[in-house]
Amino acid sequence: MSKIIIGIMGPGNKATAKDLANAYEIGKKSAQKGYVTMTGARAMGVMDAALKGAKEAGGETLGILPNHTKDGASPYADILVITGMLSARNNINVLTSDVVIACGLEPGTLSEIALALKADKKVILLSENAKGNAFLSELAAGSLFLAATPDEAMAYVQKILETEN
Amino acid sequence: MSKIIIGIMGPGNKATAKDLANAYEIGKKSAQKGYVTMTGARAMGVMDAALKGAKEAGGETLGILPNHTKDGASPYADILVITGMLSARNNINVLTSDVVIACGLEPGTLSEIALALKADKKVILLSENAKGNAFLSELAAGSLFLAATPDEAMAYVQKILETEN
Amino acid sequence: MSKIIIGIMGPGNKATAKDLANAYEIGKKSAQKGYVTMTGARAMGVMDAALKGAKEAGGETLGILPNHTKDGASPYADILVITGMLSARNNINVLTSDVVIACGLEPGTLSEIALALKADKKVILLSENAKGNAFLSELAAGSLFLAATPDEAMAYVQKILETEN
Amino acid sequence: MSKIIIGIMGPGNKATAKDLANAYEIGKKSAQKGYVTMTGARAMGVMDAALKGAKEAGGETLGILPNHTKDGASPYADILVITGMLSARNNINVLTSDVVIACGLEPGTLSEIALALKADKKVILLSENAKGNAFLSELAAGSLFLAATPDEAMAYVQKILETEN
Repeated sequence: MSKIIIGIMGPGNKATAKDLANAYEIGKKSAQKGYVTMTGARAMGVMDAALKGAKEAGGETLGILPNHTKDGASPYADILVITGMLSARNNINVLTSDVVIACGLEPGTLSEIALALKADKKVILLSENAKGNAFLSELAAGSLFLAATPDEAMAYVQKILETEN
Repeated sequence: MSKIIIGIMGPGNKATAKDLANAYEIGKKSAQKGYVTMTGARAMGVMDAALKGAKEAGGETLGILPNHTKDGASPYADILVITGMLSARNNINVLTSDVVIACGLEPGTLSEIALALKADKKVILLSENAKGNAFLSELAAGSLFLAATPDEAMAYVQKILETEN
Repeated sequence: MSKIIIGIMGPGNKATAKDLANAYEIGKKSAQKGYVTMTGARAMGVMDAALKGAKEAGGETLGILPNHTKDGASPYADILVITGMLSARNNINVLTSDVVIACGLEPGTLSEIALALKADKKVILLSENAKGNAFLSELAAGSLFLAATPDEAMAYVQKILETEN
Repeated sequence: MSKIIIGIMGPGNKATAKDLANAYEIGKKSAQKGYVTMTGARAMGVMDAALKGAKEAGGETLGILPNHTKDGASPYADILVITGMLSARNNINVLTSDVVIACGLEPGTLSEIALALKADKKVILLSENAKGNAFLSELAAGSLFLAATPDEAMAYVQKILETEN
């Protein structure tokens, strides 16, 4: 049986300090639970912070790169999947995740949230964008859950995994 | 020189009557201007309505299918590109469009709006979802334009094409 | 109903004079038959020559680019589909083609021949690589046809289209 | 730093007993060296045999699926990447591999060999198809190496990794 993969999505160079802290904590908690932590693999923002948190807690990490080489990859990815497909790889990120957690909200992250919902995946969102939270939680009631803290996010992860398995 | 392509995105079986009417009209007006009308090619919703509008006005139409065969394709697509990539093809839709117009707002359409913004494309949105409009127009000020009617949408198209060429 | 698309594949900057002449002629003949001529859209080699032949005969042309912008695209493509997926777009090229014709044989072209066979498409090959011809015609007997001239290739196209429709 | 990934490609239900034995042995040896063993992840043929060999030797395994769900996946893949892109995922397989090893030769495998060569990857081929071996070793002299046994294949792997790192 393959391992459970928690996909952590979020902004690159536009990530806020809060986004980064959330991503780092969730990566750490995901590792402590024994999950594989997956991100978009670039050496910046939420992608990097989540992998770093997971590695520092002794977890396994997976990065799925948009680029066609390892250039610009986070040093915290154990396994790098190289797609060479730019943002079309966002759909692979969500299909590969058992649960999708978004830390922050800009266009790239929004595309992953939307693709996840389209693929009938559950999404947990930690964001301080009040308008985005209002819109998305109405658009995807029952599929998208707003969390205020990493602990709340992990509680949703548990509930989702229990329901689906 | 390749032809100008107007990409019209929107819901499939969840399209409202208004979404369909908007898509049909915009397809028609796009054809009258001599543009190629492009959609996601399925025989339903906004994808089908926009291609129908364009064909009935004597225009050229392009459909980019998520499926791996022609099954389920709109009969109004002159040229069918078959990707076999499911929603990963949404990124091809937006990269291929000189301008992206969204009629309606559900997860698939939202993913195309977000991917377009990520790729620095301009997006015109016709939607009655007040929360979505508020969120997206703030998220992408200067890149996303709200239009109330097909005529308003086409006025934005003109302005965008003039600026970019 | 969508139009018939003839996909012409072949080397870029490694194309021989013969490959280029074959591609140009087949593009021309494909246009004269009323087919849409499709290639990988780059402004070089077989991709460019086939589109040029088709345009000069008044035909319609479709180019499916590996790049994420129009940079480097053949000026003979009426409609440019921009994938941003590098060689992963080769599978789109073959799925989109009603018949695949390869003029020449290097790794990129070979990948398209192989992907076409994998997708149960018929392939017509014009190549002077005796070892390649021997191997491929045995590997895919009944699916891959060796042609010595553009006229022979077009005769196979007719036969294939009659059988499949 | 990310781990070294050995990609083992080969036929699914058309694999010969020899292909399967080679794949199993190479998976085992790859694991013993501490590499991650990667395949196309389906529960059949070379994909399954190589992952099984690697798991039984205590190695780590990665599977990159063409499908859009885990259905049909090999039980020997620790980490499953789900692409939903059918054969377009073959390009991801080769970009992700530090070295590509092909056990057997049919159209799908041939597409991966060709895509690997196109991406400037080194390929090691174990095949009893004399015509294929003659053609490919000439087409890609210096990039494709014929091996008769798993040990010979692993010797090439070492040489390639030493040269590239």
